[in-house]
Amino acid sequence: MARWVHELAAERGDAEYELVDLRDYALPHLDEPNAPAMGNYRHDHTKRWSEKIASFDAFVFVTPEYNHSIPGVLKDAVDFLYAEWAHKAAGFVGYGVDGAVRAVEHLRHVLAMVSVATVQAQVTLSIYADFENHTTFKPAAAQEERLSLVLDQVLAWGGALRPLRAA
Amino acid sequence: MARWVHELAAERGDAEYELVDLRDYALPHLDEPNAPAMGNYRHDHTKRWSEKIASFDAFVFVTPEYNHSIPGVLKDAVDFLYAEWAHKAAGFVGYGVDGAVRAVEHLRHVLAMVSVATVQAQVTLSIYADFENHTTFKPAAAQEERLSLVLDQVLAWGGALRPLRAA
Repeated sequence: MARWVHELAAERGDAEYELVDLRDYALPHLDEPNAPAMGNYRHDHTKRWSEKIASFDAFVFVTPEYNHSIPGVLKDAVDFLYAEWAHKAAGFVGYGVDGAVRAVEHLRHVLAMVSVATVQAQVTLSIYADFENHTTFKPAAAQEERLSLVLDQVLAWGGALRPLRAA
Repeated sequence: MARWVHELAAERGDAEYELVDLRDYALPHLDEPNAPAMGNYRHDHTKRWSEKIASFDAFVFVTPEYNHSIPGVLKDAVDFLYAEWAHKAAGFVGYGVDGAVRAVEHLRHVLAMVSVATVQAQVTLSIYADFENHTTFKPAAAQEERLSLVLDQVLAWGGALRPLRAA
């Protein structure tokens, strides 16, 4: 799903897009001794994650839903940092039996606390409608248009908020 | 805070209470290859956690609030298992600037999916009202009564649901 998002985004030619996989950052459960809001990180895994997130203007989160919320690994990925998220925009692509809509609502609450502006448009990929035999990803035709709208909104807000990030 | 809960609970003499610290279970981010609902665990850390949670009739979750929700480590602790939680009761003791009330609401959503009955009473410990100098835990007098109510409700529901667990 994330590759599909990245490929369609890259085709737009209106921004640089990068696919970030949490697997490549190997964050443990939050283990920094100081509050992330202090920005005083001790661990190399945190510094590396901080540099990566600081390098973006906006995000599209691609997430499953585990027990009506986001996976622990995604929660930790947000909680490890603070200022790196601030005054940036985010959109969402959820996948699951019900398009991960509950997980994304939780994630919106979480991101509010780190000053991420979450856009209205959202892609909800259904195991029934967007996967062949519930396994092979074959998004319905309309999903491409929905993703396009998410990207439009994320770019617009990400750009509009830029002066606040420079300050 | 968890020790305070455990000590007051143990004084009641109406059930066996045990303090479970996630630090002692060293769960990574969810890494089981099969869905936990299948109960077919591969890893020793999961089997050990499964045995521990299976041994209880009810729970009191003691949690902080990180960015308006629960910590990733607690989310993973729930997500690793499935049947071990079912038809049991849970209460909550939250601590933080606002008593972790948003984190606990998220946790109630999560636990609904694993068939945990979450009771109405709740202890909300405030950094301002229940800690000296925002650091030393000195719960306000009324908190003991609130915790007592949480335990009353957790025991009542945990007992009432027992026939469903035996089935």
